[in-house]
Amino acid sequence: MGGSIGIDLGGTNIAVGLVSDACDIVSRKDVKTMAPRSARSITKTIVSLIRSLLNENKLTSKDLSSIGIGLPGIVDTKSGELLFATNLKLSHVNFPELFHEYFPNLNVYVGNDADCAVLGEYLAGEAKNYASALLLTLGTGVGGGLVVDGKIFRGGDGLGIEPGHIVVETDRAVKCACGQWSCLETYASIQGLIRLTEEVLASEGDSVFLQSPYPLNAIRIFEAVRAKDPIAEKIHARYIGYLAAGIKTLVALYRPHIILLGGGLSNASDLLIEPLEKAVRRDIFSGDILPVPSIRVASLRNDAGIIGAAKLYRESSL
Amino acid sequence: MGGSIGIDLGGTNIAVGLVSDACDIVSRKDVKTMAPRSARSITKTIVSLIRSLLNENKLTSKDLSSIGIGLPGIVDTKSGELLFATNLKLSHVNFPELFHEYFPNLNVYVGNDADCAVLGEYLAGEAKNYASALLLTLGTGVGGGLVVDGKIFRGGDGLGIEPGHIVVETDRAVKCACGQWSCLETYASIQGLIRLTEEVLASEGDSVFLQSPYPLNAIRIFEAVRAKDPIAEKIHARYIGYLAAGIKTLVALYRPHIILLGGGLSNASDLLIEPLEKAVRRDIFSGDILPVPSIRVASLRNDAGIIGAAKLYRESSL
Repeated sequence: MGGSIGIDLGGTNIAVGLVSDACDIVSRKDVKTMAPRSARSITKTIVSLIRSLLNENKLTSKDLSSIGIGLPGIVDTKSGELLFATNLKLSHVNFPELFHEYFPNLNVYVGNDADCAVLGEYLAGEAKNYASALLLTLGTGVGGGLVVDGKIFRGGDGLGIEPGHIVVETDRAVKCACGQWSCLETYASIQGLIRLTEEVLASEGDSVFLQSPYPLNAIRIFEAVRAKDPIAEKIHARYIGYLAAGIKTLVALYRPHIILLGGGLSNASDLLIEPLEKAVRRDIFSGDILPVPSIRVASLRNDAGIIGAAKLYRESSL
Repeated sequence: MGGSIGIDLGGTNIAVGLVSDACDIVSRKDVKTMAPRSARSITKTIVSLIRSLLNENKLTSKDLSSIGIGLPGIVDTKSGELLFATNLKLSHVNFPELFHEYFPNLNVYVGNDADCAVLGEYLAGEAKNYASALLLTLGTGVGGGLVVDGKIFRGGDGLGIEPGHIVVETDRAVKCACGQWSCLETYASIQGLIRLTEEVLASEGDSVFLQSPYPLNAIRIFEAVRAKDPIAEKIHARYIGYLAAGIKTLVALYRPHIILLGGGLSNASDLLIEPLEKAVRRDIFSGDILPVPSIRVASLRNDAGIIGAAKLYRESSL
């Protein structure tokens, strides 16, 4: 039948899928990552999942065209090395070499997880009919990837782009986990939204909807916005302002045909898409003359990373 | 002998060069643009300059491999159309078609002027030994270009990148000529530097070095910084802060091997390179693990655009 294996190796979960040439996930397995543990131990777990998938589908590794692994960190796709992944507490790991011990005849490709996700959306998801696509994931952090001319854009040195680390303010108000100040991630991630909320509550006083008992979380904040709580609406406006600033920068530098939002916060699409499109179009660079990309929610969710990882082999021939 | 013609068509000057295969400008002609005037009239002027160059070098158009034109505006390189160019007051002009009336057997390529400049620096200038390069021009406006994998990066829809229109502040303090608020250009251009200076003088009081009755200009401001005027030093620190924020964003999104500064303000390299490198390296995304590009002054100056334009034909075969 052909097909390839796509692996989404995350800090919390590992998902392994058998993906058809037509980009369908034929079957899949999910387990907890149980990080931190050694790369060799993670590899063993994944290999046994691949073997179960093959058995269940009456296939052998000879039926596969390749294995692709999406990794939550900085990946040198030329050498195959994962340089570091904070969530996995791993650095300088060469997964293709580890996998070759089990599947010596298969090509094994690695990529950054957000790069795999945008490739998946581009090939089989919400960006399928677009020549280029930018994915921006709004979750624990802010990440993303770009496909241009059918290929993942990884920048000059090939180590991958970091849309979450656009500097959106020049005052040194908020330190980002990455070391920089005032990255988009410090405002647009889940933690960023909660911090913004605490900031507004501190200056504006408690709101009925957001008052203690804490803890604050994104769902409660978005519910308060939907209930038209004035303080929540202020928080929402500031959140949209930061995200719109980041998106305008991304359009000026990447000119994608479409922008997809992914990650946990994108579930609140009713509070994001329309206000963001409005804020971006209001004054974007030459928006009266140049095309402005539409903003949509990524459609494949957690499948995007599996499909994209399974299709990493395309890159080697483009 | 071979070689090709490179044209740098600017709002003020037109420069036409005969460029060897080895990227040397064999000979060149410069005239005033005399804008605004029709594209047909500009074409006639350039054609006569090309003919003089050919005559003087005892060549005919058959000796040329191509003609390339760098244009100060948004260029659709696929159709060959200049969508618009503010300084020339031209829009929707197809220069390749106009040139074909005079040179029916030559391929004519068009590109954005900053894209041509970075290609020139990449092929023959300060970025010659680097696999990728970003050029940032600090002049009347802020512009730039990127070469990745030997090719000009023009973004998803191919209409070209705009590094000057990174949004570096989310407050709506300064309106940019492009329609957006708080673009890098509004702080890092010559006008931006003068505006910053006026702002600091208004809040801090006059400085001996910067007081009236002169009109402020970049040279006087930089002289006051060199003379260690405390107010000028504050202006300088703020200027570097904005530029460093923009450069950190550019590194996160483009990962170039080298960053070159061009444009009029880059003449003050003694006040730019060292403080910028320091500000960027101090906290840049994962700078302790990932390579941080060095920052240097572009070396070819006005020649870069001519050389890059002459080499646009490369793009069609890459």
